[in-house]
Amino acid sequence: MNENIRTILEGVREGTYSVEEAVLKLKEAPFADIDYAKIDLHRKLRQGVAEVIYGAGKTSEQINGIISAMLRSGQENILVTRLSKETFNELKVKADIVYHEEAMIATVGKEPVPDGIGKIVIATAGTSDIRVAEEAAVTAAFLGNEVVKIYDVGVAGLHRLMARLDDIMSATVIIAIAGMEGALASVIGGLCECPVIAVPTSVGYGASFEGMTALLAMLNSCASSVSVVNIDNGFGAAYVANMINHVSDKRKDIH
Amino acid sequence: MNENIRTILEGVREGTYSVEEAVLKLKEAPFADIDYAKIDLHRKLRQGVAEVIYGAGKTSEQINGIISAMLRSGQENILVTRLSKETFNELKVKADIVYHEEAMIATVGKEPVPDGIGKIVIATAGTSDIRVAEEAAVTAAFLGNEVVKIYDVGVAGLHRLMARLDDIMSATVIIAIAGMEGALASVIGGLCECPVIAVPTSVGYGASFEGMTALLAMLNSCASSVSVVNIDNGFGAAYVANMINHVSDKRKDIH
Amino acid sequence: MNENIRTILEGVREGTYSVEEAVLKLKEAPFADIDYAKIDLHRKLRQGVAEVIYGAGKTSEQINGIISAMLRSGQENILVTRLSKETFNELKVKADIVYHEEAMIATVGKEPVPDGIGKIVIATAGTSDIRVAEEAAVTAAFLGNEVVKIYDVGVAGLHRLMARLDDIMSATVIIAIAGMEGALASVIGGLCECPVIAVPTSVGYGASFEGMTALLAMLNSCASSVSVVNIDNGFGAAYVANMINHVSDKRKDIH
Amino acid sequence: MNENIRTILEGVREGTYSVEEAVLKLKEAPFADIDYAKIDLHRKLRQGVAEVIYGAGKTSEQINGIISAMLRSGQENILVTRLSKETFNELKVKADIVYHEEAMIATVGKEPVPDGIGKIVIATAGTSDIRVAEEAAVTAAFLGNEVVKIYDVGVAGLHRLMARLDDIMSATVIIAIAGMEGALASVIGGLCECPVIAVPTSVGYGASFEGMTALLAMLNSCASSVSVVNIDNGFGAAYVANMINHVSDKRKDIH
Amino acid sequence: MNENIRTILEGVREGTYSVEEAVLKLKEAPFADIDYAKIDLHRKLRQGVAEVIYGAGKTSEQINGIISAMLRSGQENILVTRLSKETFNELKVKADIVYHEEAMIATVGKEPVPDGIGKIVIATAGTSDIRVAEEAAVTAAFLGNEVVKIYDVGVAGLHRLMARLDDIMSATVIIAIAGMEGALASVIGGLCECPVIAVPTSVGYGASFEGMTALLAMLNSCASSVSVVNIDNGFGAAYVANMINHVSDKRKDIH
Amino acid sequence: MNENIRTILEGVREGTYSVEEAVLKLKEAPFADIDYAKIDLHRKLRQGVAEVIYGAGKTSEQINGIISAMLRSGQENILVTRLSKETFNELKVKADIVYHEEAMIATVGKEPVPDGIGKIVIATAGTSDIRVAEEAAVTAAFLGNEVVKIYDVGVAGLHRLMARLDDIMSATVIIAIAGMEGALASVIGGLCECPVIAVPTSVGYGASFEGMTALLAMLNSCASSVSVVNIDNGFGAAYVANMINHVSDKRKDIH
Amino acid sequence: MNENIRTILEGVREGTYSVEEAVLKLKEAPFADIDYAKIDLHRKLRQGVAEVIYGAGKTSEQINGIISAMLRSGQENILVTRLSKETFNELKVKADIVYHEEAMIATVGKEPVPDGIGKIVIATAGTSDIRVAEEAAVTAAFLGNEVVKIYDVGVAGLHRLMARLDDIMSATVIIAIAGMEGALASVIGGLCECPVIAVPTSVGYGASFEGMTALLAMLNSCASSVSVVNIDNGFGAAYVANMINHVSDKRKDIH
Amino acid sequence: MNENIRTILEGVREGTYSVEEAVLKLKEAPFADIDYAKIDLHRKLRQGVAEVIYGAGKTSEQINGIISAMLRSGQENILVTRLSKETFNELKVKADIVYHEEAMIATVGKEPVPDGIGKIVIATAGTSDIRVAEEAAVTAAFLGNEVVKIYDVGVAGLHRLMARLDDIMSATVIIAIAGMEGALASVIGGLCECPVIAVPTSVGYGASFEGMTALLAMLNSCASSVSVVNIDNGFGAAYVANMINHVSDKRKDIH
Repeated sequence: MNENIRTILEGVREGTYSVEEAVLKLKEAPFADIDYAKIDLHRKLRQGVAEVIYGAGKTSEQINGIISAMLRSGQENILVTRLSKETFNELKVKADIVYHEEAMIATVGKEPVPDGIGKIVIATAGTSDIRVAEEAAVTAAFLGNEVVKIYDVGVAGLHRLMARLDDIMSATVIIAIAGMEGALASVIGGLCECPVIAVPTSVGYGASFEGMTALLAMLNSCASSVSVVNIDNGFGAAYVANMINHVSDKRKDIH
Repeated sequence: MNENIRTILEGVREGTYSVEEAVLKLKEAPFADIDYAKIDLHRKLRQGVAEVIYGAGKTSEQINGIISAMLRSGQENILVTRLSKETFNELKVKADIVYHEEAMIATVGKEPVPDGIGKIVIATAGTSDIRVAEEAAVTAAFLGNEVVKIYDVGVAGLHRLMARLDDIMSATVIIAIAGMEGALASVIGGLCECPVIAVPTSVGYGASFEGMTALLAMLNSCASSVSVVNIDNGFGAAYVANMINHVSDKRKDIH
Repeated sequence: MNENIRTILEGVREGTYSVEEAVLKLKEAPFADIDYAKIDLHRKLRQGVAEVIYGAGKTSEQINGIISAMLRSGQENILVTRLSKETFNELKVKADIVYHEEAMIATVGKEPVPDGIGKIVIATAGTSDIRVAEEAAVTAAFLGNEVVKIYDVGVAGLHRLMARLDDIMSATVIIAIAGMEGALASVIGGLCECPVIAVPTSVGYGASFEGMTALLAMLNSCASSVSVVNIDNGFGAAYVANMINHVSDKRKDIH
Repeated sequence: MNENIRTILEGVREGTYSVEEAVLKLKEAPFADIDYAKIDLHRKLRQGVAEVIYGAGKTSEQINGIISAMLRSGQENILVTRLSKETFNELKVKADIVYHEEAMIATVGKEPVPDGIGKIVIATAGTSDIRVAEEAAVTAAFLGNEVVKIYDVGVAGLHRLMARLDDIMSATVIIAIAGMEGALASVIGGLCECPVIAVPTSVGYGASFEGMTALLAMLNSCASSVSVVNIDNGFGAAYVANMINHVSDKRKDIH
Repeated sequence: MNENIRTILEGVREGTYSVEEAVLKLKEAPFADIDYAKIDLHRKLRQGVAEVIYGAGKTSEQINGIISAMLRSGQENILVTRLSKETFNELKVKADIVYHEEAMIATVGKEPVPDGIGKIVIATAGTSDIRVAEEAAVTAAFLGNEVVKIYDVGVAGLHRLMARLDDIMSATVIIAIAGMEGALASVIGGLCECPVIAVPTSVGYGASFEGMTALLAMLNSCASSVSVVNIDNGFGAAYVANMINHVSDKRKDIH
Repeated sequence: MNENIRTILEGVREGTYSVEEAVLKLKEAPFADIDYAKIDLHRKLRQGVAEVIYGAGKTSEQINGIISAMLRSGQENILVTRLSKETFNELKVKADIVYHEEAMIATVGKEPVPDGIGKIVIATAGTSDIRVAEEAAVTAAFLGNEVVKIYDVGVAGLHRLMARLDDIMSATVIIAIAGMEGALASVIGGLCECPVIAVPTSVGYGASFEGMTALLAMLNSCASSVSVVNIDNGFGAAYVANMINHVSDKRKDIH
Repeated sequence: MNENIRTILEGVREGTYSVEEAVLKLKEAPFADIDYAKIDLHRKLRQGVAEVIYGAGKTSEQINGIISAMLRSGQENILVTRLSKETFNELKVKADIVYHEEAMIATVGKEPVPDGIGKIVIATAGTSDIRVAEEAAVTAAFLGNEVVKIYDVGVAGLHRLMARLDDIMSATVIIAIAGMEGALASVIGGLCECPVIAVPTSVGYGASFEGMTALLAMLNSCASSVSVVNIDNGFGAAYVANMINHVSDKRKDIH
Repeated sequence: MNENIRTILEGVREGTYSVEEAVLKLKEAPFADIDYAKIDLHRKLRQGVAEVIYGAGKTSEQINGIISAMLRSGQENILVTRLSKETFNELKVKADIVYHEEAMIATVGKEPVPDGIGKIVIATAGTSDIRVAEEAAVTAAFLGNEVVKIYDVGVAGLHRLMARLDDIMSATVIIAIAGMEGALASVIGGLCECPVIAVPTSVGYGASFEGMTALLAMLNSCASSVSVVNIDNGFGAAYVANMINHVSDKRKDIH
C-alpha cells in the first residue's frame, strides 16, 4: 500500500492527478464493491496467484457474483473453500470449475507447477482427520506446492509414523492434523527440523470439546517448532505453509 | 462392611449383643471420632498396610492428634502427604518419622519388602514434573511396590523415551506424569501393554491453565490403556497402581 | 518393538538381511497400509486377542476394508465399537458377525472363555447410563472376562447399592458409570478394595454440561482408588479393566 | 413495603401528610444513608432479629460506622461476617462484641433462645470444610436455631455418615458442606426427608477449580431435595435454613 | 432406614428372623428390581404421597413397566416428568392418567387437597419461561400445595412485579424462574421474607450460554434468601418448595 | 413512575381517588395483562415511538394477541424482532404489517422521518454479518434515525475500511458488527471520535465459540470509546444508538 | 486522518512539500516516538481535552517520560489511570499534579467547567464497588461533565434505589456498577430512559469468578438500553458516557 | 535419527559393532543423562547452533549442572530462557555468560552474524508487551537473525503502525505481540505478505483472562497468514521465525 501512496503522490506532483483524483484513487483503487462484498483485486497484478473465496455462509448467488467479478477483473485462478456439494451444484460459472469433494473446495483455473523451496508434508493422526487434511492438500497444491500425504499415523502406534521418517525429515514445512489429544504435533515437532503448522480437528467426543482439547494441547507443545491455527482450519495451515515454502522468493523481490 | 453386619447380627441371635448394643456397634465400630476428624480404624486389622493422612489444610496439632490416635489403635505404618517442611518440623510424634522432602511426604514405620506382581514404572515428561513423581514414588514404595523411575523423557525427544523401552515393556503398571500438552501418556500407552495411570501436572504456563490442558489431553488419549487422576495427584496414581500391582492377591482372599 | 529391533539387528549381523532390507523391515513390518488406514497387525501373533475398530466417523466401505484386511492377516476376533445399526446393515463381511444393539458394537468371532483373575463389576447410577454400560460389558466379555452388571444403583437411594454389597466387595475391578453429579464412583470407591474405573456419562441436562460435571466430580473423588476415562467411554473403561483383570499374566510372561 | 405505601397514602388522605411529605417519606423512610452505605433499618421493628454486615472488603472505619448507625437506630443484635481477626481488633464498638475465630464472625448482642420448628443439622465431608461450617453454625445459632454438627463424614467412608443417621433423619433442614466432588449432598439428600441446602467449598486442588466442581455436582444432584448456594457461602445456607426452620411462623402472621 | 435396621434386629433377637433372613431383608426390602430400574417402594407406606418417574431418556416400554410395578405395589399417585407427548401417547397404563401438555408431565391419581403451611408463589421473568413454570406448578399442586402464578414480571418493567406485591409478601416460599440475566431472583429476594428457590432457564441467546449466565447470577444473588437448582429444573424447585411448605409436619412426626 | 406516584398522591389529597383506588391504580396502571404477557402501555402516551415485541420463542397466537392489545391501546408503531418467515405468515394483524426478511423483523406503522442529532453508521467485518446488521438497520430507521451502511470492511483488508473514512469520521454513533476475532470495533474505535457500539456475531467456526471470542475481544478493546452488547444483538445496538442519537432531546424535556 | 492526507496532498500539489517530504509527514506527524511509547499528539489541537495515560504496568520512569513529552508538546490536561500510590510518589513531574487516592488516578491541569448536555449518574450496587465508581467519577469530571453519585443501591433493597428515582429519571447517561449478579444494570435500565453503561466489577467470591458472572449477566440484560464495558473498567465507562453527554457537539462541528 | 539407525546398522554389518553394542548405542547415543535431566547432545554436531534451557522451575544447581554438561560435550552457544535475576546471580558457570534483563534470558557464547533470508520484524501493541518482545528479540538474534523492533503500535492508533509500513512490507516473517483484544495480528496480517507468528500476551485485566482472549482472537484471525503460539511465548515465536528465515538452507542440505 505504501508503494501506492508514493505512486499516487508522484502523480499529484507531476500533475497527472488532481488532489481530488488522488484522494479518490486512494479510496477506490484496490477493490470492487458489489454491495454484499468488497472484492480484493490487488492480487490480480501478480499472474498465477489464486484468489480465495470463503464459501461457508454465502449463497450460491453471492458466490456466483464474486466469481464473476473476479473473472471480469482478470483473475484466472480462484479457490472456493468450505463449499457444500449442494451449493456447488447451484453455481453457474462461465469458466472451468472443478469440485474436490472430500476437501469441499471448488477450483477455477489450472493447478500451477510447484515452485516452492521443497515439499509440504501433511500428516493426520487418524482416518477421521482426512477431510481437514484434504482441504489443506488441495489448497497447498493449488498455491503451487509439492504435497506429500501421510495419513493415520497417530501416536498410539508410533511405528506407523516412524515408517515415514524419511518424509518427515526431508520436509520444508509440515502440517500436523489431529483431534482428540493432539499429540501428533509434538511428536512430529520433536522429530523434524522444520516449522510445524498444527491443525487441531473437531474429531473426538466427550472431553475433546469439539477440538478445544487438541487446540490447547498443540498450543502447549513442548516442541518449539510448532505454531497453531484454528480448529479444522486446513486452508489456513496450507496458506501459511505455502508462504513458508516460498519465503525465499522474497529475497529475489528485495534485491 | 457386610461382614460386620453379619457378625453383629449373629451376636444378636446368640445373645452376645442386645439389640441396642448392636445398633450402637453398627454405628461406632469402624472409626475413632476425635472431633475434627473421624479416623478409619478398619484397616489396622490387616497388618502392614499403611494408613494415609492428607496433610494439606491441616494444622500440626490436628496431624499430631490423628497420628496419635492411629498409633494408639495399633496402626504401625502411616503416610502423611502434602506436608510442608514447616508443618513437619512442628510435629511431635512419639515414633520414628521420616520426611521425604521432594515428595512432601512424612512416613512412620518401615518401608515394606515389595510383594507386588511386578514393577511400577514412573515416567515424567520433564524435570519440573519430578515433585509429583516423587510423591508417587514414595507412596508406591511405602505400600510395598518395586518402583522404577524414568524422568525427563518428554515426547519432543522421543529417543530419550526409546532408550528406556525395556523398562516400559516389562512394567506391570506405568504412571505417566506430564504437564503442558500431556502427550507422554498417549505415547507410552501406545508402546506398552499394561495399564497406564496418567497424572496431569500444573507444569506449564499460559494456555496450560494450571494443568487443565494436560488433563483434557490425557482424557482424550488415543491409547485405550490410559485412565486419569486429578492434576498433580501423584499419591492417587500410586494408590491405584499399588492396587493393580496387588490385584492377584484378591484371588487368594477369595479362595 | 524392542524385540523386533533386536531380531532385525541379529539378522543383519548374520547376513540374513542387508542393511537396506533391515531399514525397510523396521518401517514396514507391523502394519498393513490400506491408504485410508494403517492397520496394526502386531497382535495377530497372540491368538484369541480381539482387535478393535473404532466405528464412529468411518463409512461402511472403510469398515469393510479394515475387517477384510484383518481377516486376511489371520485375525479371528474383531470388535467394532460405536457402530450405528444403519452402518452395520451395510457391512458385507465374509465371516460370522453379530450386532449388540444397545452396546452399538459388532463382533466377529467367538466370545472367549473368561480367564481373568476375578470378576469385573459394571455399575450404573441410572437407567439412562445403560447404553454406556453395555458398551463396557460387551467389550469386557469379548476380551475374556466374567462380567457382573449392577444397574440403576445411584446414590440417592443408597439401599439399592447396599443390596449388592457382596458383588461390590468381591470384584477384581469395578467400572462405575454415572452422569449428573457422578457421585457413584466415590461411594463405590469408599466401599470396595479394588481399583475403580469411573466413566462419566453425558446423561443429565442444564449444568451437567454433557458429562463435564460428572467428569470433574470423578476426577476429584475423595476415594483414592478411582481413576477416570473420557465421557461415555465404556469401551476404554472395559479395556483398562481387562488389563487389570489379566495383570498377573505378566508375571508368567516375565518368568 | 406495600404496607408502608398504604400507611403513607392514608396519612395523605387524612391530612397528616402533605403530598410533598409523602413523596419524601416514601423515599427516606427505610434506611439510613451514611454516604458509603445505605443501612436497612426496616428490621429493627421486629425485636430480636439480627442485622447482618458483610465484612469482606470493608475497612474497620466503615464497619465501625455501620455498627454505630445500627446501634443508634435501636438494633441490638448484629452479625459481622467474613471479618478477619486483624480488622476485628481494629473495631471500636461501644457494645459487647464477641469474635468467633474459626467462623470469622463477630456478634453484638445475645444469642437468642432457639425457637424454630426443629433442628438444623450441619454436615461436612472433611476437616477442611469446617471453616465454612462454623460460619453456618454461628449464623444459624445467632438467628435462633438449635444446631447439630456432624463433621468429617465424607462419602468415601459411608459408615461415618451412617453412624449419625438418627440426626440426619430427625433434622428439619440439613446444610451439607463439601468440596472436591461434593457427593455428600446427594447421599444425604437420599437419606433424609427434609430440604438440603448444599454448600460447595473451595477445598480441593487441581480440577476442583476452587469449588466449581463441587458446585456443579451439587446442582446436578440426583436427590430432588437439594438446592444450592454459592461456593463457601456458609452464611447464606444458614440464612435460608433459618427461614425454613421458622417457616410456620408465617402462618401465625397471616392469621 | 435406621428404623428398619432396628425392626429387623429385634426380629432376629425374638427369633422371628434367622440371621440369613435378616441379611436378605436388609438387602431386598425397600425396592422392586425390574432389571432396567430399581423402584423405590419405600414411600407407598405413607398414603397420598406421589411417586415420581423422570421420563426423559426412557422408552414408553420402560415407563409402562415402572408404572405397572408401582401400581402393583399399591402406589396410587404417580408423576411422570419430562414426558414428550409422543411417548405419552404410546403409554398403556391401566389407570386414569392425565397429560399436562405445557408442563410435559403426566399424572396418575387425584390431585390432593392442599395441606401446606401456606402458598407457593411461582414467578417468571418472561413468557418463554412459562414451560418451566408449569412443570413446577403441576408438580407443586400434585404434591399438595396451593399455587399462585405470576408470569412475565421481569425486572426491566418493575411495576409489573410491584403490582403483585401482595402475593409476594404473603408467600410461604417463592419459586423465581428466569433466563437471560436472572435478576428476578435477587429482586424478589429483596422484597419478600420467605425462602426463594431460583430456577435459571435456558431462555436467551448468545452469552446466555443456555442458562449458565442466569445460573451463575442466581448463585451470586445479593439476597441471602435465595438458593438455586439446576437449569430448567422446575420439578426440583417444586419438590424443595413442597418440603418447605410442609416442614412443620415434621414437628408432629417427632412429638 | 415517580411522576405517576406524585399524580396519584395528589389525586388522593384532592379526593379524586380513595386510598383503595390509589393502591389499585399504582398496581394496574402501566400495563395490560393478557395472561401470558404483561404489555407495557406506558409509551403509547408519547406518539410516534415504536413499541417492541421480541418474537423468538413466542407462538403466532401470542404475537397476534400482543399486537392486538397494543393496537387497542392506541399504539401505532410496532416492531417485532427475531420473527421467522413462517411465524410471520401465520400472523393475522388488522393493520398494515411489513416483513423485512434479512432483518427478520416485522413492522406495523410508518417509518418516521429521521430526527436524530446525526447519522448512525452500521459497519460489518464480513458478508456473513449482514443479517445482524440488517436487524440493527431496520430497527434504527424505524426508531427515527438516518442510517449509513458499510458492509464487508473487515480489518484484513484495511483499505476497504479506509475508503469509507468520511462516513466513519462524520457519524454520531457507530455500530461495529463482527464475528471471528472482532477486531473491527477496535480499529473503528481508533479512527472515529464518537461512541462505538460493538456487536459480536456468531460468525466463525472452531475457537470462535459461537461469538464468544469476538465478544471477549470487543470487551478488551484498546479503544476507550467501545461498549458492547450481546452476541448477534443487532436490535439492542440500534436501540442504544438511537438513544444516543436522540440524547439532546433530553435537554428540551428538562427545561 | 483523512483531513491530514488531503492537507499533505495539497502541499505536494502546491510545491510546498516534495513527495519524499510528504511520505515522511504522513508517517511522522501524529505522534512522538519516545522508544518505549508512541505518544498521540493529535488531540493537543483541541484545547481543554485531557490526554490519558494507562498507568498499570508502567514504571515511574516511563510515566515521567510520557508526561514530559506531553507537556513539551503543549498538552495541558493529563489523566493517569490505574496508578498506585507508590508509583505516584516516585513521579517527578514539572507541573501541578493531584492524586485521587480511591480512584487511583493522578491529574495534571485544571478540571474543566462541565459543558455536557446533562448529568452523568454513577450508581453502585454495594460499598465495595466504590473504587471503580470513583475511577469513573474522577474521569468524567475531568473530561467536563457534571457527575451525580448514587452508591450502595443494590437490588436486594429496592427502596434505596427508588429513593433516588429523581436522579435516575433526569440523567443523560447512567453508569451502573455492580459485582456479584450484576442485576443493578437491568433494574436501572428498566427505570430510566437514557443509555446505561454497565460496568461489572470483580466484587464477589466463589462463582462470581472475579466479575465474569456480573459481566455475563449485564450482557444478557433484558433492558435494551444497556451496553457493557470490561470488568472494573470505570475509566472506559466514563469515557463513553462523556462522548454521549457531548454528542450534540458533533452537530455544531458538522454545520 | 534415521541417519543414526542406518549408521549403526552399517556398523553391525561391517562387524564394527556387535548386536549388543548396537542396541546399547541406539539407546544411549543422543543424550547425556544427569539424573534430573536428559540433555540432548544431538545438535552439537552442527557448530554454531545454540542449545536452549528452559529456566523456569529449575534451581540454580540444576541449571549449573545442565550448562556444565553442555560445555563438556562441546556446545558453545547456550540460551537460558525464563531466568530470574536472582537465579542468574546464583549461577557459577565457567564461561562468559551475559544476562539480558528485560528478556529474562542468559546467553553463553557469541551472538552469530545474521545469515537468514531476510529480516524478522517484532511488533507489539503496547508498552507492557515489551518483556515478551525482548524474549523474542534476544532469541532471534542469538539464533542468527537480523531483528527489527516496532513497539507500541496497537490498532487503536493505526497511524503509528502505518508509519512503519516499509518495515512491515519488507519483512521475511513478522512476530505480532499483543494482549487485550489481540487485533494487531489481524491488521498486520492484512498488510504484509509474509507469515505472521502471533503471540498473545497476558497483558490486560478483567475479561482478558490472562491472555486467553488475545489467544482466541488470534486463532480466529481473518488474515490467513497468521499462526499462533502460547500466551507470552516470545521464545517459541522467535524459534519458529528463525526456522522460516532459514528455510531455504534446507534446499542446500538436500541437494
